[in-house]
Amino acid sequence: MRAREKTEQIKLVIVKATDELLYHKSYNLMSFSDIAEASDIPRGNLNYHFKTKDDILLAVVAYRVQQMNKMLSDWDASINSPLERLLRFAQIPLNEKNNVVQHGCPIGTLNQELGKVQPELKAISKQQFDVFKQWLIKQFSDFVPGQDAQKLAVHMLVRSQGLSAVAFIEEDKKIIETEVKAIEQWLKSL
Amino acid sequence: MRAREKTEQIKLVIVKATDELLYHKSYNLMSFSDIAEASDIPRGNLNYHFKTKDDILLAVVAYRVQQMNKMLSDWDASINSPLERLLRFAQIPLNEKNNVVQHGCPIGTLNQELGKVQPELKAISKQQFDVFKQWLIKQFSDFVPGQDAQKLAVHMLVRSQGLSAVAFIEEDKKIIETEVKAIEQWLKSL
Repeated sequence: MRAREKTEQIKLVIVKATDELLYHKSYNLMSFSDIAEASDIPRGNLNYHFKTKDDILLAVVAYRVQQMNKMLSDWDASINSPLERLLRFAQIPLNEKNNVVQHGCPIGTLNQELGKVQPELKAISKQQFDVFKQWLIKQFSDFVPGQDAQKLAVHMLVRSQGLSAVAFIEEDKKIIETEVKAIEQWLKSL
Repeated sequence: MRAREKTEQIKLVIVKATDELLYHKSYNLMSFSDIAEASDIPRGNLNYHFKTKDDILLAVVAYRVQQMNKMLSDWDASINSPLERLLRFAQIPLNEKNNVVQHGCPIGTLNQELGKVQPELKAISKQQFDVFKQWLIKQFSDFVPGQDAQKLAVHMLVRSQGLSAVAFIEEDKKIIETEVKAIEQWLKSL
């Protein structure tokens, strides 16, 4: 293996471990030592690959965005109708319900945490949100004109963020089930 | 003024300053020094009244719960119909829209931050959420049987938390206006 490949491989190990860690721990409570422990990479080595914790966050968001784009492209290729794709999207919190009641929505909680006083980091984290939003607008454009598609996309995100937030606060999976069913009914009524 | 009254007065100054500070800064990034500065109380004095930061949080939540109960009792007394009361509730994020787009929902962001790894603090913070939920259930009970009233109350919180979260992420007041209008239409359709 060439040195550069090896570097990329180690970076990916760190990024994946931090991605996982971010579900369980808030970004501001997370230390370099936590990341070293979670990724099983010595601290010195970690510092060689990433100078700051913010650098790791940047890499984690880039990784997540890549994964999200891959998932959405797969759906575009394998699911024919935009309505069916939207119904698939609505099910994300349902498929992740154990994580959602224990740790909240990974995108929402990170954005809200960083939004308070860290505008540069929030802008980075927001990229994840934008990937979903742009994809949703594309799907809704099949039903309605452009500006309305934007409104429907925002409404979809409002309901999805809202149910994740409340299910997390209440630690109640039934809330996810009930609210996802309501979203499905709403989508079918369009 | 008696010594005890003076103590209560100083505590209230600290609590109010911390309440305000919590809009702007995450709890875990907030230091005793921040609170001392915001409340204009010397650190030694602060430590005399509250041994830990968690003690201050406890007092802030108690203060908020008291304020919330007062607001809801006032509505119960001054607004005759449950529907009108619910419409009033729906407008909270609209009346606070500048704060919401800049800092998010004060109840939601605090609950989500503490929910990751601080279950005892989350349980304290959740009291705020429960005050709203119980009041909403009481209002919806006028329309529908008990169990359905609970579902409608949760749905109301989902939409309210969702719109605050997305408006905060997007920093867009129009989202609040559009989504509150949609909640009003939903309430009137019940």
